Amino acid sequence: MLKTLTIRPLSLDTLAKSSLSISRNYTIGHFTPAPPLNTQDLNPRTIEAKYAVRGKIPQRAEELKKLIERNEDHNLPFNEIIFANIGNPQQLDQQPLTWYRQVLSILENPSINTENYPQDVVERAKVILKDVGSVGAYSNSQGSLLVRGSIANYINRRDGGSQANRNDIYLTSGASAAVQYLLQLLSVNERSGFLIPIPQYPLYTASIALNNAKPIGYFLDESNNWLTDPKQLRHLIQENKSKNIDLKALVVINPGNPTGSVLKENDIKEIINIAAEFGIVIIADEVYQDNVYDGEFISFKKVLSSMIRQHPELYQHVQLASLHSTSKGLGGECGQRGGYMELVGFEPEVKSIILKLCSINLCSVVSGQALVELMVNPPHDDSLPLFKEQTSTIYNNLKERALTLHTAFNNMQDVTCNKPQGAMYLFPKLNFDKLTYPKLFSKAKNEDCEIDELYCIELLEATGICTVPGSGFGQVPNTYHLRTTFLPPGTDWIHRWEEFHKKFVATYKN
Amino acid sequence: MLKTLTIRPLSLDTLAKSSLSISRNYTIGHFTPAPPLNTQDLNPRTIEAKYAVRGKIPQRAEELKKLIERNEDHNLPFNEIIFANIGNPQQLDQQPLTWYRQVLSILENPSINTENYPQDVVERAKVILKDVGSVGAYSNSQGSLLVRGSIANYINRRDGGSQANRNDIYLTSGASAAVQYLLQLLSVNERSGFLIPIPQYPLYTASIALNNAKPIGYFLDESNNWLTDPKQLRHLIQENKSKNIDLKALVVINPGNPTGSVLKENDIKEIINIAAEFGIVIIADEVYQDNVYDGEFISFKKVLSSMIRQHPELYQHVQLASLHSTSKGLGGECGQRGGYMELVGFEPEVKSIILKLCSINLCSVVSGQALVELMVNPPHDDSLPLFKEQTSTIYNNLKERALTLHTAFNNMQDVTCNKPQGAMYLFPKLNFDKLTYPKLFSKAKNEDCEIDELYCIELLEATGICTVPGSGFGQVPNTYHLRTTFLPPGTDWIHRWEEFHKKFVATYKN
Repeated sequence: MLKTLTIRPLSLDTLAKSSLSISRNYTIGHFTPAPPLNTQDLNPRTIEAKYAVRGKIPQRAEELKKLIERNEDHNLPFNEIIFANIGNPQQLDQQPLTWYRQVLSILENPSINTENYPQDVVERAKVILKDVGSVGAYSNSQGSLLVRGSIANYINRRDGGSQANRNDIYLTSGASAAVQYLLQLLSVNERSGFLIPIPQYPLYTASIALNNAKPIGYFLDESNNWLTDPKQLRHLIQENKSKNIDLKALVVINPGNPTGSVLKENDIKEIINIAAEFGIVIIADEVYQDNVYDGEFISFKKVLSSMIRQHPELYQHVQLASLHSTSKGLGGECGQRGGYMELVGFEPEVKSIILKLCSINLCSVVSGQALVELMVNPPHDDSLPLFKEQTSTIYNNLKERALTLHTAFNNMQDVTCNKPQGAMYLFPKLNFDKLTYPKLFSKAKNEDCEIDELYCIELLEATGICTVPGSGFGQVPNTYHLRTTFLPPGTDWIHRWEEFHKKFVATYKN
Repeated sequence: MLKTLTIRPLSLDTLAKSSLSISRNYTIGHFTPAPPLNTQDLNPRTIEAKYAVRGKIPQRAEELKKLIERNEDHNLPFNEIIFANIGNPQQLDQQPLTWYRQVLSILENPSINTENYPQDVVERAKVILKDVGSVGAYSNSQGSLLVRGSIANYINRRDGGSQANRNDIYLTSGASAAVQYLLQLLSVNERSGFLIPIPQYPLYTASIALNNAKPIGYFLDESNNWLTDPKQLRHLIQENKSKNIDLKALVVINPGNPTGSVLKENDIKEIINIAAEFGIVIIADEVYQDNVYDGEFISFKKVLSSMIRQHPELYQHVQLASLHSTSKGLGGECGQRGGYMELVGFEPEVKSIILKLCSINLCSVVSGQALVELMVNPPHDDSLPLFKEQTSTIYNNLKERALTLHTAFNNMQDVTCNKPQGAMYLFPKLNFDKLTYPKLFSKAKNEDCEIDELYCIELLEATGICTVPGSGFGQVPNTYHLRTTFLPPGTDWIHRWEEFHKKFVATYKN
């Protein structure tokens, strides 16, 4: 007789004993078929999770793009879609860096004709292939040892004297995978709290929702360049502790997404103090570290290292996960899914659990790992001049576009926008209120959407410019924003936006 | 005054109103630093999840490999590690297919010198680049439209007349990501049950554990080529329903991992009947569909399509997710992380939730998507002869090695092994019992490990051959197995294994 074959998650080896009496000739009987699953049958956390960057408005933009491609709608007042909703440089006009792509082409086919390639390209490809064997083989789960060593060197150079160790580095599929490992690891139950900036990149709220944990938003101060307020953080921590919330981690996005802010050393010190006092993990999302146009990027690792040197007794147990990616910076290789996290101050047992989570996914894409190597260990020889030229052109373009767009926003009626310091986005404020824009508020109410969502929808339908409403990132209640990248080339689209905005104000303002 | 800034997962827009009074001058106070997190502070599900394929034994093998590389241990009785623990062909001697790598090298660097490339390589690269723009750009979250179209055509060719639609296809990072989306989607709570084969590929139990759901093992019948037993499945379903378990999905791995079995049409029909009657999703892990050495691969989609044609009233609502990957087959491009799933019979609202899960990860690696295109849409022209030669050489090699290893196992004392039909593994049975191997059982007890684990450890330490004990996959209680790939080239390692086995038996058998 068959007994229960239920398996406890903890062990496969505790299967109930059973004598198998298997029949091959079970007759197919008549039955009433069951209906398919509907959303009530699904994990409610997967339904609750929101991800506006690829939500309703971008989906509508994709539809419009298809109409244009098929020549199906001759009444559209534009002939292209400007995808300003997502930091995806190579979808727009940004060309890949030659250094990256020459090496990657050899990794994919070691027998290509390389006679026109610089010698350092050929040599680097050899070094990488010696380590990984083939980009078609799984690497170890934590990632290539060579690449992890290069990352450690990069961190030490960047931070001047911190002591990075390749064993603390985990290669991940973009930074998104790192975020998901960390949130999964730290979400014990629905009382596990995560401090996240508002506005935030919605990967964080989405991942917190998927893990059934508790997001606790701290507001960034728009009147002060979107900086963090340590007093507010401490207040929130006390308040949530008193409610029995177990605060696990504090997310900082620096340079800021969607805000474009860049933290100063003192801001970082304040946050590290909080982490040290309350035992809260710092998740430092530093994927825009090479996109700083005003001031300089200072890593959490650098500040923490110096604090540990001065006061090891206070700071040696601070747990920092800092994330980086090949998707942003000046390479913008989003589709290649390269990334890594460095873990500082974590106990070995905790790191071994993270390694297991990585191993369940086998390994991150090996060509993406190689790209991380090329990013953190740029060329020194023949390829250097072109590399410098390409990266500085991209940098200058980004900076110029940021400033042009910033000026345009501040010239629009009832729009204000902080000066862009970093990242790839502007997050202008739409100063609309019920008193002066009554028609706008009643239309939004009728259509059951947010004020900024309505603005973004009308912007898209009128100009083809696709953006994301501030409500997708979070904002102080009764304020309205939107996020736009400053990646699209040229200024035509900005002029179209200005024209749209004038009409929008004329339509809805009293 | 600051009020609570807690965010409900459902909406970011319901933040409590707050007047921000931010101070920039918070004084860093003295405090008692908090200790770092330990495993008690972590999500217990991440601790419980097990993944033996990259567990203790492979980790020890990596250590040994380092000793050999550094020439640090001259007493090892072998001078190389044979990684037979994981299906990773290109880690061993398998060369990548030229067709794949030539096209990929152009995608990475469209300006390479292609004068020695066949024309169809250059043309295919153009077609792909026209669709994706650049492999450095994010694709849409579901994956490239071109690639999804090619997959649909492939499925229709393979299955002769089924009606695949590219909108039902989702490109994923290997098949592992697809499994994780599906299990996350279907895990409502701890009463959500998943029927999984025993033995199984441990990704399933690991993902079920991470989602805090309930694995329900059904035994494959070793005495009957590891086939499924519908009677047992029905018994388990009834029993678990009576315990108020909500059965969500039934996992079938065909060709089998780790068993190497291949299902016949009738086996598949029985499973589809069960799914239709009980409304259980079929997760058909078909990543080894091109690795069949005996008999033929028949897809679930093909059988389901024909059942729907005959009896739509019974089968139209059967929900099938079938998975494929570039990691296995004859290309063996594990590190490239290409894969897809086809969803049949799911409601549109359910598919939209899956699309959202994909979008939180932005997109699967675009070069991996391109590799899926090259796999499902192989060359027709200039590249065809070499492609055929390379794939048939690989196929014949795999088949020959499978048979050689199979013969070796059946010649070993107290070992039996089913004939290999498919996949990349053999799962021989170690017929050890307490009566005839008392020393073995007492040693295992002393060392607190499983019988098969002890065998695999001693095999590794004596020969350098790394395998995975059957306990990592699940097995009928008091039976012992191990999984080995038949990928390592040559027969030397097999002779070493035979020698080891003789000594093992001599040491432990009465």
